[in-house]
Amino acid sequence: MSSAPENPPADKAAYTHETVFKTRWKDNDVYGHVNNADYYGYFDTVINEMLISEGGLDIHNGETIGLCAESHCKFLGPLSFPGSVDAFLRVAQLGSSSVRYELALFDGETGEPAAVGWFVHVFVDAQTRRPSEITDQMRALFERLQVA
Amino acid sequence: MSSAPENPPADKAAYTHETVFKTRWKDNDVYGHVNNADYYGYFDTVINEMLISEGGLDIHNGETIGLCAESHCKFLGPLSFPGSVDAFLRVAQLGSSSVRYELALFDGETGEPAAVGWFVHVFVDAQTRRPSEITDQMRALFERLQVA
Amino acid sequence: MSSAPENPPADKAAYTHETVFKTRWKDNDVYGHVNNADYYGYFDTVINEMLISEGGLDIHNGETIGLCAESHCKFLGPLSFPGSVDAFLRVAQLGSSSVRYELALFDGETGEPAAVGWFVHVFVDAQTRRPSEITDQMRALFERLQVA
Amino acid sequence: MSSAPENPPADKAAYTHETVFKTRWKDNDVYGHVNNADYYGYFDTVINEMLISEGGLDIHNGETIGLCAESHCKFLGPLSFPGSVDAFLRVAQLGSSSVRYELALFDGETGEPAAVGWFVHVFVDAQTRRPSEITDQMRALFERLQVA
Repeated sequence: MSSAPENPPADKAAYTHETVFKTRWKDNDVYGHVNNADYYGYFDTVINEMLISEGGLDIHNGETIGLCAESHCKFLGPLSFPGSVDAFLRVAQLGSSSVRYELALFDGETGEPAAVGWFVHVFVDAQTRRPSEITDQMRALFERLQVA
Repeated sequence: MSSAPENPPADKAAYTHETVFKTRWKDNDVYGHVNNADYYGYFDTVINEMLISEGGLDIHNGETIGLCAESHCKFLGPLSFPGSVDAFLRVAQLGSSSVRYELALFDGETGEPAAVGWFVHVFVDAQTRRPSEITDQMRALFERLQVA
Repeated sequence: MSSAPENPPADKAAYTHETVFKTRWKDNDVYGHVNNADYYGYFDTVINEMLISEGGLDIHNGETIGLCAESHCKFLGPLSFPGSVDAFLRVAQLGSSSVRYELALFDGETGEPAAVGWFVHVFVDAQTRRPSEITDQMRALFERLQVA
Repeated sequence: MSSAPENPPADKAAYTHETVFKTRWKDNDVYGHVNNADYYGYFDTVINEMLISEGGLDIHNGETIGLCAESHCKFLGPLSFPGSVDAFLRVAQLGSSSVRYELALFDGETGEPAAVGWFVHVFVDAQTRRPSEITDQMRALFERLQVA
């Protein structure tokens, strides 16, 4: 039975990786706050920045790349421009060629929770796009980020 | 017990609303296909275009607006620029101030499924951002789009 | 003396290539109309769609790609979501490895001019990123699009 | 005679305002570097962040807002994700209801110039969208940022 994973907690202490970044003019939509689709762009940025700087991912010439297989977001509060985002991540599930990250976003000024969600990466061969083993360096990173 | 909704079918005949649009240069990411976050942007466009043209939504001066409370996407295949997207929608669940849409995206040229997902809109007062009854015109639209 | 080129005319009949596309939810910014930076994204899409379909550009594996060297836009009127854009292009200047396109955007519903501008592509070797001769197929396309 | 303004210098010392921000995953296009249209999004962010924090601009409820009338960018070198951008601005021309900013972007890691350009804001009444006097607070800001 494959029921969907539950939403992770809006609790900074529950996560193992953190990064901060500024919002941009165009993140705000016509209703004056960061658009829902941009939250997923934040997820993508947080994840890939980490994979590149700590996991050895080479997005230009690497043999193995990560593609998003499924993602999810529950919106808890607004973010806006100008402002900043305090983003948290942990590894929830680790397979031979896939990983499920859990993420939480907070308003960088107030500390209020803005969203929690998750994102599944399947690692594939950059040419054939068929599933490929997670590399040793990447796996070591994911194990460090996993919660007990 | 609030388990997450299941993914809807990748079957065009199961949906009640359809729209077609072109992809853009910047939809492709560095891996050469439409980025995962942009699928959510497609959802947003499909939904709001319909709410405006058929449901009476006024995004500039309306008293009631729809905010995304939760969304989900399972990625089934690539989309790319240049190309087009054939997008389908139906209403899965209808409450007094919220609605859950189910969506499916297909490659406009090959007809292959690209993604299925869902998106919850909570209707709120544009000023206070507190939940607000779905208007009669909007509810009539949602009932037409609901599956038996 | 290298004075900047003048803005091209807001006159549909002055152009040699046309394409139409829909706006999207997220094109609108907080002020309720299509954001200025997105006009350049439209330029990019119109140009590259044409280069791929008619000029033989292969954005994934081609030896020669086009990079933007300089661009310009004068904003004449609003565009918005929902809506459509009627985009026009012509070739204003053609060198051995570069081309300057002139573009004009109109509201797809009212026909009112939204912007005029120009965009310089330098063709480069995809690996070395050094200037590269425009291919014969591409040059033939540009000559067809050039105004007398 | 209305010849277009020249490009400003790629010299950090020539500017009067500076801000730094990170690039994002989706800034890279299929060619692996920040897309040209996103440079204009950077301009918009740098300008508006400054107008809001120092010039009293209220993008949600203000009587006067700034709309882009014309913009221009000359691309000098690549920017990429991951990475950061060091952005500089000065005021080149100041009228009763409009201002022309000059901007320069540098790679935040290498310090290499990425682009120079300019951007004209016309201040308008948020309701009627007719030109409106620049407020005293805003004018004081612009005068501080103007070069002798």
